[in-house]
Parts: sequence; C-alpha cells; structure tokens
Amino acid sequence: MIHENRGRLLIACPDRRGIVASVAQFLYDREANIAASDQYSTDVEGGTLFMRIEFDRDGLVTYEEQLCSEFSQLAKSYEMEWRYAPARQRKRVAVFVSKELHCLQELLWEWQSGQLECDIAMVVSNHRDAEPLVQSLGIPFHYIPVDPADKTRAEREQLQLLEGNVDLVVLARYMQILSGAFLAHYRERVINIHHSFLPAFIGRNPYQRAYDRGVKLIGATAHYVTEDLDEGPIIEQDVTRVDHRYNASALRIAGRQVERAVLARAVKWHLEDKVIVHGNKTIVFA
Amino acid sequence: MIHENRGRLLIACPDRRGIVASVAQFLYDREANIAASDQYSTDVEGGTLFMRIEFDRDGLVTYEEQLCSEFSQLAKSYEMEWRYAPARQRKRVAVFVSKELHCLQELLWEWQSGQLECDIAMVVSNHRDAEPLVQSLGIPFHYIPVDPADKTRAEREQLQLLEGNVDLVVLARYMQILSGAFLAHYRERVINIHHSFLPAFIGRNPYQRAYDRGVKLIGATAHYVTEDLDEGPIIEQDVTRVDHRYNASALRIAGRQVERAVLARAVKWHLEDKVIVHGNKTIVFA
Amino acid sequence: MIHENRGRLLIACPDRRGIVASVAQFLYDREANIAASDQYSTDVEGGTLFMRIEFDRDGLVTYEEQLCSEFSQLAKSYEMEWRYAPARQRKRVAVFVSKELHCLQELLWEWQSGQLECDIAMVVSNHRDAEPLVQSLGIPFHYIPVDPADKTRAEREQLQLLEGNVDLVVLARYMQILSGAFLAHYRERVINIHHSFLPAFIGRNPYQRAYDRGVKLIGATAHYVTEDLDEGPIIEQDVTRVDHRYNASALRIAGRQVERAVLARAVKWHLEDKVIVHGNKTIVFA
Amino acid sequence: MIHENRGRLLIACPDRRGIVASVAQFLYDREANIAASDQYSTDVEGGTLFMRIEFDRDGLVTYEEQLCSEFSQLAKSYEMEWRYAPARQRKRVAVFVSKELHCLQELLWEWQSGQLECDIAMVVSNHRDAEPLVQSLGIPFHYIPVDPADKTRAEREQLQLLEGNVDLVVLARYMQILSGAFLAHYRERVINIHHSFLPAFIGRNPYQRAYDRGVKLIGATAHYVTEDLDEGPIIEQDVTRVDHRYNASALRIAGRQVERAVLARAVKWHLEDKVIVHGNKTIVFA
Repeated sequence: MIHENRGRLLIACPDRRGIVASVAQFLYDREANIAASDQYSTDVEGGTLFMRIEFDRDGLVTYEEQLCSEFSQLAKSYEMEWRYAPARQRKRVAVFVSKELHCLQELLWEWQSGQLECDIAMVVSNHRDAEPLVQSLGIPFHYIPVDPADKTRAEREQLQLLEGNVDLVVLARYMQILSGAFLAHYRERVINIHHSFLPAFIGRNPYQRAYDRGVKLIGATAHYVTEDLDEGPIIEQDVTRVDHRYNASALRIAGRQVERAVLARAVKWHLEDKVIVHGNKTIVFA
Repeated sequence: MIHENRGRLLIACPDRRGIVASVAQFLYDREANIAASDQYSTDVEGGTLFMRIEFDRDGLVTYEEQLCSEFSQLAKSYEMEWRYAPARQRKRVAVFVSKELHCLQELLWEWQSGQLECDIAMVVSNHRDAEPLVQSLGIPFHYIPVDPADKTRAEREQLQLLEGNVDLVVLARYMQILSGAFLAHYRERVINIHHSFLPAFIGRNPYQRAYDRGVKLIGATAHYVTEDLDEGPIIEQDVTRVDHRYNASALRIAGRQVERAVLARAVKWHLEDKVIVHGNKTIVFA
Repeated sequence: MIHENRGRLLIACPDRRGIVASVAQFLYDREANIAASDQYSTDVEGGTLFMRIEFDRDGLVTYEEQLCSEFSQLAKSYEMEWRYAPARQRKRVAVFVSKELHCLQELLWEWQSGQLECDIAMVVSNHRDAEPLVQSLGIPFHYIPVDPADKTRAEREQLQLLEGNVDLVVLARYMQILSGAFLAHYRERVINIHHSFLPAFIGRNPYQRAYDRGVKLIGATAHYVTEDLDEGPIIEQDVTRVDHRYNASALRIAGRQVERAVLARAVKWHLEDKVIVHGNKTIVFA
Repeated sequence: MIHENRGRLLIACPDRRGIVASVAQFLYDREANIAASDQYSTDVEGGTLFMRIEFDRDGLVTYEEQLCSEFSQLAKSYEMEWRYAPARQRKRVAVFVSKELHCLQELLWEWQSGQLECDIAMVVSNHRDAEPLVQSLGIPFHYIPVDPADKTRAEREQLQLLEGNVDLVVLARYMQILSGAFLAHYRERVINIHHSFLPAFIGRNPYQRAYDRGVKLIGATAHYVTEDLDEGPIIEQDVTRVDHRYNASALRIAGRQVERAVLARAVKWHLEDKVIVHGNKTIVFA
C-alpha cells in the first residue's frame, strides 16, 4: 500500500470561481493523475474553500521539489494556505501513555497489521507499565516520571527526545497536562483521547461524573491539544450505550472500547493527511 | 394488546434476603401469574433493590383493591416504596408544543398506530401552528399564549385544563420554562426532550453551540423536568453522526430525527411503567 | 432552499488523466462556480470515474440548453455517460402503498417540512387505507385494486396515470410485484423499501423468517427495482437491535422505524441527484 | 471480581404459576441472597420459561453439592432443564485460529485486562502465524496442520488435547470446518465468528460477495457451531457502515473491527453463563 509516486495537496483559501479548474489544470500540465479529490466550502459566496487532492505522477520523488515551487506561485495568486505531503513518507509518531494501556495496544495492533501509515518512533511514559509490551516489539521506551512540583523538567526531557525525530505526538491516555510551551512545538500535531463526549465532562474523572449524572450513553473524543484543556479541535467522537446497571468502574471498562476506536480513527486520518484544522474545528475528508 | 387482567408492581426498598421470595409467594398465594419480572440492586450488600413485576390474575378489576391493601402490609415490613398500576388503565397525556411539530407528530403517529398505551387528552401550545393537525385528529387543542412579563397566568390556565384530567405532561419542543410551582403538581410526570446530548449544551441554542464547538455527533435527551433546568433524571439519549458540512441549520434538521425517536421511546417506557426515578437518575426496565 | 441558478452534472466515464481539469475548465469558461464536487474512481488505472458536480451560474435557466449542447462535445471526447439536472426542477413523485402506512407517512412528513425536493404527484394504492390521509393533504389518491389473476390491467391503469407526469415511483411498502414491462418504463426510477437487510431474507415474510432464525439485528434496504426480485442496486440499508423477547409481530413494529428512515434517506438522495447506478451497485455521493 | 460464594442457576421449563416463588423460596430457605435475576417466557400461557439467577451464599463451596441435590427435587416437579455453575470456577478455553489474528488478539487482550472470566488453556492452529504472540504470553500453542484429504487425523489430535481440559472452544477465524463427530463432543460449547451478517453470505468469501452485491453495511455473527454450516444458534451480531469506495479488501479490514467486538461479547456472555440455547436460538440475559 506504499504509493511511491503519490502526493497529497491540502489547501484552504477564500472561495472564488476557477480554483478547482486551476489546480486540476496545474496537475494535468505536470502529467499528474488525480486519484482522489475532496472539497468543501463554508459558503459558496465569500466563504473558505478546503481541498484535498491525491495525485499520482511518475518519478514524483525527483520532481516534487520543482512541483511545490511552481505550485507556490499558483497558491499565492489564490491566497492559499497549503501543504504538500508525499504519501511514501511515513510520519514518525511518539505515543505518550500512563498506566492504562488499551489505547496504546490498539495503536500498536493497527500499526502491526499495516493499518496505520507511520513509524512508531518511541513510547514515552511516566510509569513503567507499558515497558514490557513496547520493548517486546522493538520500539524504544522512555520512562520519564513527572514531578508534580516541577513538570518542566519532564517536558524538557521529552522535547529533547522528540526533536527532529517525531511528526506527531499521540496522547494515548497520558494523564498529564502538557504546558503551552510544549505544545508550541507541536501545534496541530498533538492528538489526545478524552474519555467523554466533549463538551460534556471536560476535565477530570469523566466516568465518575457520567455515573453521577445518570447518562444513558458514554463517549470519547479525539482532538488536537491546545492550551485550553479539552477545548481543542475535535477530530472524531463516538458513544456506546450503557444503562443503570453500570457503576463508574463498569463505565470505565465499557468506555475503553470507544476510546481506542475513536483514537485509532483520528490518528489514521491524521497520518493520511485527511484532517484540516480551521479555527477551532476540523474538516475531515474521511 | 389491552391486558384486562394485568397489573404492574414497581418497588424500591433496602435490599435484603428474601424479598423476591416474599413478593413472588404473595402473588402466587393470590393466584397471580408472573408475566415479566425485572430487578436491579445498586449493591447486594446494603444497597437499594428495584423491582418491576407484571402479573396476570383472573378478575383483577374487582380484586385489585384488596390486593393492594394486602400488599401494603408486606411493603411495610420491607420498607418498600411502591406503586401499583393496572395495565388496562391507559394514562392520559397532555402534549405541550411550540412551533416545531416533529416531536408532536411522532407521538401522534405512534399513538395512532397503537404503539403508545395512552389517550391524548389535549395538546397545549403557545402558538397556533399545531392547531390544524391536532384538530384533524379530533384532539382538543388549547392555544395559551405566554406573556414573557407574566408567565404565571398561562401556567394557571394550563393547570386548570390539566387538573384531574391528565397523568403525564410531555414537552414536545415546548420552548417555555415551567415554574417550580407548576412542576410541583406533576413531580416525575413531566417529560421534556432537550435537543442536545446532556450534559453537553445545557440551555439555549444547543445546535448553534454544537456547530460552534465542531462536534462530530449531535444528540437528544429525554428527561423528567425538575426546577433545575436540563438537570432532571435522564430517561433516554441518542446521537447521530454529523460532519463539517453541517451548519447550525443542517444540525437542527438532522437533530429532529434523534429528538423524535428519543422522546417517543422515553414516553413509551413511562406509559408502560418501566421507569423508576431514584435520586437524580432513572432505572429503566426496557 | 430552491437554487434557481444551480445545476448538477453526473458523469461516468473511463478514468484518464485530465478529466477533472477539463470539466472544471469547461465550467469556469462559462462563468459557473463549482459549489460541490465529488468523484470516485473504481481504479486509478483503467477504472471507471464517477463525478458529481454542483455549480452555480447566473441566468442558468436561459443558458442551460446551450451549456448542455456544448458539454455533450466534451463528453463525447471522454466517452462519458452523463446527465444534467437543474436543481430548481423538483422531481414529480408517485408513491405506491398498500395497507401499512408508516413509510408513506414519513415521506409526507419530510415533504411537508421541506426536506424532500419534490412534488408528490399522486399516491396509488391497491387498498383504501391511505385515502383519508392523502386527501387531507390535497394529494390525488388513486385506488387501483390488483386482480391476482390479471395484474396487467392494474399496471396499465397505473402507467396511464404516471405517463408524462412522474419522474420517480416510490414503493412505500407496496405489496405487489411489478412486471418487467412496467419497470421498463421507469428504469432506475423505481425505489422499493424491502423489510430486511438484503441479501438476507429475500422475498416474503422477512420478519417471520428473522424470528425463526433468531437474528439479533433486523434491517431494511432501499433499492432500485429490477426484474430480479430484491436483487436491484442497493441505495441504503440500516439495522436496529432486537433480542429474544421480540416475536415476529414485535420485530415488525421495531422494523418500521428502520424502514421509514432508510427509505426517506434513499429517496432524498435520489431527488438530489446524488445516486449513480453502476452495474448492480450504486455510488452514493451523500 | 472473583465471587467465591456466588452461584448461577440456569433454568428452562414449561411456564406455570408459582415457579418464581418456588425457586426464590428455595434459595431463601438455604440462606442464599439473590444478586441478579432474569426471566423470559415465550408465552405466559403454555410457553417455556427461562430463568437465570445469580445468588450469594456463605460457604457455598462446601454446600453446593447438597444444594444441587436438593434443587434437583424441585426441578423435577417443574420439569426443569437446568444447570448450576459456580462463579468462582473459571471456564477453560481453547482458541482455534488460522492466519488472521485479530480475533485472537482481542480475546487475549480482554483476558489480560480481566474482562474475560476464563483461563486460556491453549491456542490451536493449522498455521504458525500465532505462535510467537501466544508463546510470549506463556500460553501453550499447538500447531496441528490439516490435511485436506484426511481431516479426521487433525481432529483426533485436537480432541486428545482438549479432552478433560477444556470447557469451551472458540473458533477465532479458524478457517476449517469441524466435523459432526468433533462437534458431538462439544455441543453448545463451540463458538464461531462468521464474517458476515447471517443469514446473508453463508459460506465462503463473504466480503467478496458483499462487495459484489453492493451492500451498505457489513456485519459479523457469533454463533454456536452445529453440523449445519453457519446455521447454529446466533449469540450476537453487529454491523458497520461502508460505502462504494470499499473494495473487497477494504471491507475485510473494516470487518475486523466488527468481528472481534462481536466475538468478544459472545464469549464473555457464554463465560458468565448468560446464554441459554433454545432450539436454534439463544436467550441472552446480557
């Protein structure tokens, strides 16, 4: 499934007539074949247009520098924000985890079975629970305990490990809040799984609070992390049905199935460059 | 589907050994046949036991006064809260509605097709939109406008209509907040449909706020109404998937399908005496 | 929501490089603005490309004849099968129904609330059950009983009513099988709702057979009708959960919710020209 | 979560008045406390009653022989089929697998996290793919290739391994058909996951056939295995949404999520004695 000659263009720009034609013509003129194309406009008149195009082109590896340079001309004339990503370049992922391992396991399982287009560069944890599993797969494991009195030290260590080595950080039930300073290095590149259907139950202990409120469904939310806790752009959400017989512990167990499925989908879409962040929302061309 | 000789017992009491045996024996001794039985205990040791029993007994109509009188003896010894409801006695329902009619229509449709065990005693509205539909079915329609400066007047009029005539009030997208004084007359007998997945988006304009937040699912919640707005015991919830292409108006339209389904289920369960309120939660023996 | 100046192009053709660019350029040159665009290719190399484009263009009404004539040139060079549909032209629908009215009611409700872009030209039935409902809405109702010994007579009468008057026939639980002769007049324009999750339970009495088999979900399928009973291209399917407590009659009642939702979605997509039939399958750009 | 003093009674018998009272009284007289109770009657008059009772009783281990002996008297008078299972006795499970490991992995994951009340006695496979995973967890792995010309030899070997050692056989994508002779040893104790929504796509290659038919949902079915291929009593089913973009391979990948979830639920219910087989159906007190 590695597409040596496949490239992806993600575009956001003010909508106006002729954009699709221009981009399509641009690719045609360069002997590229459009394999998939999605577009969405917030409003046909005066809105923002979002596009995702996958194209195939022989000899892309040696050609893409020129292609991007030329596209930047076109992009300028349409005031585009855009990025290019070659499909062959697997993103490097660091997974952060604490004691609950189900989300990590799901990601590793999907990765092993070839469903996640990435390399797992490392697993970082403030506990040692994940170590045997991670090392059995030959993935580097870094134990970095977090001192509640001085979190910056752990973050400094983490950043050193990540630097130049990692494209995406996945918080797979990592129970520490990352600082704004940390996040500034990975804007729109830190995905968290929150164990509730946001914006319900922001913050701590969502399952206990779901139990106290007596909800009939519980959920999970995968989102990009911003400085505002649990307020970042939502990528994916899902729920599962519960009833009066579930206490907080049973909700927690039932919730695991949703958490791991939701996180895996969100990470997969990110890795395939299917997510565009727009303000505090996402456009997902899934 | 009218069960002339079917009765329903709903029981809540401190859990202890022998309760099931005692109740079952009580019914057996009175020649009643248990048709359905559900029970749930919050904790086997020191918890609260909830039971719902449906039983059939020949000649129930003339016998049930005696049966209840005798059962109250048993109930006392186990410190039961309980109620008895004969299945043949259809509850009388008042539906309150404003301008959006989809929930009302769903209830009327289910009622016409025999799925709701009730009589629709009346429809009350602060607008005239529902009038033709309601009257075409021969159901009394009462137009009671609400003066924002003096809501008590409308409520007084409503209470007069309801008094002695109605067992359940269903707020089928009725966009007025009922006062505590009103609710005191119908404790655990006013069901509202809220157009969000509570506790997300409590209060006004949930679809607009769902849009602003960029959620990937929208929901609806049916709950008993208490003085705390949108905080009453939840009976049923459900969600439907949306994506970035839905603006607030499209969310509103998509949400209608969930609202009407959730409300119809909640009302149906209430009418069949399948819901027990316990603190701020419900046990639903669906 | 009526788009006076909006047109829709649906295209199927052998996939090759430059199609998207050509079509986009064609529209740009004619001052049309692409409002939505979907494409799907069965295979980038040697496959079939399917496109749906919605565009806006001032003065479309007086221009579209010329536009289509010019597009047919382009279409020829790419060996396209294509059709053009102006969004302003509401399709005319005939609903066929027998005794169960829930699907008809759902369609009428969606139509009344503006969710279905169509005119209901007539309701045809082999029973009189739907007559009061239909006439109360001012829609022509035609009672055409079907003689089991000679079905052609009823079909002849139906065809006379439909001729030149109807774009789509919806079988909303119409319990008669239409002949190939009838269907030949409305190829890919007769939608049926089958009360099972096809290909499970093809033919008669699916709920009884679902009960006999002990399934844990029941479903419904909306499909275009072909001469092969229940074998036509599937447009939409859905399921709902059941358990051992459901007898055949309870399955039937639970199934109604799925049937009406599935049929309404399928009809809506057809009316908005979102469905392309390809062999015995559909591409749905929903 | 091990309940030393918890017992489970599963009962099927002709429904008549007094059964619940008798069973409850029986337990009360023996100082047992009913922790959970479910019942279902196919028909109140002349039907079959199914009951599942969980009870707690001090010193159950030394008492249960006597309790069962005494209960057999009661059972006889009501013509009950019944079984008793102590909750503390974890069932021993053999998992059969071929080359696709996702269902096995899910079971192992649930088992490791304490969600499956069982011991994994062994994994048996006609391939070596699962060996490293299984052995890394310290579980015995048996490689038993199957000779298409003489399957009895493999089955003989399997039966020897299982004999006296295993309570449940789970076919977690084991791609061999077991003979009636084999199944006779494990009646209602072999659970298979079939990768379609039965009875759709019985037999080979369901995903290819789902693709060919153009379905809009794909499913999975967990069922007890009988001699009639894919016709045994269904325990659980579920589906997931797909669309025209899924080829057979994509359906296969999407289907894995459903397969593993459905199988895990079915196995869990079996292990907790929540499933009663009745003819070709199941009653699941989930």
